Amino acid sequence: MQTANTSETNDLISSEKVDGTAVYGRDGERIGSVKSLMIEKRGGRVTDAVVSVGGFLGLGEKYHSLPWSTLKYDTDVDGYRLDVTEDQLKSGPTFDDADTDTALDRAYQTRVYSHYGVNPYW
Amino acid sequence: MQTANTSETNDLISSEKVDGTAVYGRDGERIGSVKSLMIEKRGGRVTDAVVSVGGFLGLGEKYHSLPWSTLKYDTDVDGYRLDVTEDQLKSGPTFDDADTDTALDRAYQTRVYSHYGVNPYW
Repeated sequence: MQTANTSETNDLISSEKVDGTAVYGRDGERIGSVKSLMIEKRGGRVTDAVVSVGGFLGLGEKYHSLPWSTLKYDTDVDGYRLDVTEDQLKSGPTFDDADTDTALDRAYQTRVYSHYGVNPYW
Repeated sequence: MQTANTSETNDLISSEKVDGTAVYGRDGERIGSVKSLMIEKRGGRVTDAVVSVGGFLGLGEKYHSLPWSTLKYDTDVDGYRLDVTEDQLKSGPTFDDADTDTALDRAYQTRVYSHYGVNPYW
């Protein structure tokens, strides 16, 4: 089960290695990578993934905070598949790298969860 | 709720900011800090915390992988309180920085969960 210096197994991944995990769209095209995960301090649950999306459909690189339930891990591609449509992603809330705290802002999160039709976890 | 450039709120913390979060013992003394969290790729659940413990009770700096349920977040101290005894920690499984994959090894995890009397999550 263990492989050398990967900091991950089939089941687990270290928070240190989350950065860079590939994210694929519904059609299997790579659309970006995970920048970070938002974690509940107390419950220890991942609530959102911040995904860096760039060079996709003519979009510049932007950060999308996505509800965790929209990502499904796929061991075949060693990355996450995104269960949202292109239109949803293109029209969804984004932020720039400089605004890393945006993903934690409840007003922003409210817009995100509404946009993707996911019941808020809070 | 949002504060500038902290990458955390009262409820959430970014995986990028987990590194360095303080860990306190039962008596309130600081015993170390979080190095990383182990996260289930699919379920998005934190299973273990890798805690760097050093200069505590004469121990050299070592890494302890601890079941998530042994850490309780305490907003008063902005860190985690460890719900294990000193004896448990001193005699518990540890590894060196060079062996970062140890925390992911199921045989090692089995020893850890047995040691701290926590039912394995797997």
